Amino acid sequence: MEMTKTKVHNFSAGPGILPQEVVKQASEAILDFNNSGLSLIEVSHRDKDFMGVMDEARNLVKEILGLPDGYSVLFLQGGASLQFSMVPFNLLRPEGTAAYINTGVWAKKAQAEAKLLGNINVIASSEDKNHTYIPKNIVCPKEVDYLHITTNNTIYGTQYKNMPNCECMLVADMSSDMFSKPIDATKFGLIYAGAQKNMGPAGTTMVIVKNDLLGKTGRKIPSMLDYKIHIENDSMFNTPPVFAVYVSMLTLRWIKKLGLKEIERRNEEKAALLYNEIDRNSMFKGACEKEDRSLMNVTFVMNKPELEDAFSKYLKQANISGLKGHRSVGGFRASIYNAMPIESVEVLVDVMRDFEKKNG
Amino acid sequence: MEMTKTKVHNFSAGPGILPQEVVKQASEAILDFNNSGLSLIEVSHRDKDFMGVMDEARNLVKEILGLPDGYSVLFLQGGASLQFSMVPFNLLRPEGTAAYINTGVWAKKAQAEAKLLGNINVIASSEDKNHTYIPKNIVCPKEVDYLHITTNNTIYGTQYKNMPNCECMLVADMSSDMFSKPIDATKFGLIYAGAQKNMGPAGTTMVIVKNDLLGKTGRKIPSMLDYKIHIENDSMFNTPPVFAVYVSMLTLRWIKKLGLKEIERRNEEKAALLYNEIDRNSMFKGACEKEDRSLMNVTFVMNKPELEDAFSKYLKQANISGLKGHRSVGGFRASIYNAMPIESVEVLVDVMRDFEKKNG
Repeated sequence: MEMTKTKVHNFSAGPGILPQEVVKQASEAILDFNNSGLSLIEVSHRDKDFMGVMDEARNLVKEILGLPDGYSVLFLQGGASLQFSMVPFNLLRPEGTAAYINTGVWAKKAQAEAKLLGNINVIASSEDKNHTYIPKNIVCPKEVDYLHITTNNTIYGTQYKNMPNCECMLVADMSSDMFSKPIDATKFGLIYAGAQKNMGPAGTTMVIVKNDLLGKTGRKIPSMLDYKIHIENDSMFNTPPVFAVYVSMLTLRWIKKLGLKEIERRNEEKAALLYNEIDRNSMFKGACEKEDRSLMNVTFVMNKPELEDAFSKYLKQANISGLKGHRSVGGFRASIYNAMPIESVEVLVDVMRDFEKKNG
Repeated sequence: MEMTKTKVHNFSAGPGILPQEVVKQASEAILDFNNSGLSLIEVSHRDKDFMGVMDEARNLVKEILGLPDGYSVLFLQGGASLQFSMVPFNLLRPEGTAAYINTGVWAKKAQAEAKLLGNINVIASSEDKNHTYIPKNIVCPKEVDYLHITTNNTIYGTQYKNMPNCECMLVADMSSDMFSKPIDATKFGLIYAGAQKNMGPAGTTMVIVKNDLLGKTGRKIPSMLDYKIHIENDSMFNTPPVFAVYVSMLTLRWIKKLGLKEIERRNEEKAALLYNEIDRNSMFKGACEKEDRSLMNVTFVMNKPELEDAFSKYLKQANISGLKGHRSVGGFRASIYNAMPIESVEVLVDVMRDFEKKNG
């Protein structure tokens, strides 16, 4: 089978670019899964080959992050949006309070769902400057049930470089920077991430949770929202999203092969190339505070916004896709996830230089 | 690209067999989606091509079932198991009562989740005979908020041939017989079905709901469990399971092309062939009451259970896969979903005859 040549430079914010070898293997498994003569999407999830996929995916996460005993890894459905409810259902006592930091749309949605279930305390916010920075010097009350943060803010292009100091349990939505660099997962009580940025296709959500934090709220939790039930059933309480878990497993193999240190090095290199050009080029300026710039989502605007359409045409001619900024920010956003090759960033930088020469 | 020849006869109970043309198209779209130069699993769900897929999937359901205005079609995540909670969250008033009929494991799980949220009344059960029949002459109290049924019971091989008469709202889990025959959807307030039997791969759940039933319980509903929010957002409240929705859309195209009448005719033909053999063959007997036999999941046991291993070897030699009965019933289960060709059923019947000749 000949691989279709992808010439498009895919800067989509998510679902986003995946390693080409993963895409190819996924396509092949749809035709024949593990030489079974059956398609991946026609086999029972209780088939030993698929049980092996689920096990391998879970173990790869543990290995890549060096997770110690006492943590569980889950592959669930419903995206980060369902985690916004699952987190308080499982961790917020009815009479307790959860702390949230508001760094944008997704952080705010997480707050709103927790508020349906109990008390929340928004201890910091970047709303005053349209979320173009990460709040610093966070003081979190000791007695909260947990502190929830959004480590990378896809829409605005901001990212925590240091986690807030707090004595309480830290819960992190890492949907858009999971596996983009080494982290010390043991600093978190719970981490969740929709797959569709760095880990796989849309359709599954990874959750890492410290087991001994669960079962303490006394709430009646719907089974599908209860982490304990999913842990007891090895993420097979009901039919899992077979395809999304399989492709995540393939992507995790790729991540393990490179290692998070090398992935971080590449991500820093790509981001530096692009941010340096933004700062150098007279036509553009970065959308966020320099110290809080995301290595995943590079947001920038034009010094002359009236030239946006002309620049968009340049992008299109160069086969650059997915660079339109989110409607709440405007301008441009280049999402440069793990699988984005530096060559595509170089093409973008060249286009920016060309545009300056002709219009500067 | 050459199609891999699938020689295995796939009788899996689900995820189960899909039309071969759908499998092939799905594999191709993973390499190149709509000639975009991008993989289906790398494009944004806000991409106009994928928005078109979601629209088409929704419209195909409306067209295939002849749904009138006033019904919404949703593609969600979490399987039927999440619907077990969403149904009472959205339809059961805190002081109300919901009626349930217990026809097996899945029906019971649906009850258990509703019980977490309010009062339920199990108005009929087939538990006395290990769910080998469908309860008849149902009398449902008028004042319940809804009556919940499971139209096809995958594990036991039973299926409602007539829906219970009731004056209240009827809610049906049709996960394993959706789109297997024409239905009058307007007799139901809400229908849900996990995709992974007749509609697509695991990873999405279709919901059909009558709009004017919603918003009446006064409950605080987590956004991801709120049908109204999903309706308002055209199933795009958060990132949908792109791949599962796409493959469902392809399968719905195939269903529309054949038409539900022709699909029903084929399903009846396949089921008759197999049930006739079970009834004729001295080695086997059907597991359920004849009048309640499922056209989707054909369950049978051996008159001499000690021959099960020998028969299993015969099946394996004939490349017949997925015929092991569910652990709670034992024996054998042949799932003959829409995409199962009659040729595979003929192979199974031949094997049963051979086995009788040599062992009878």
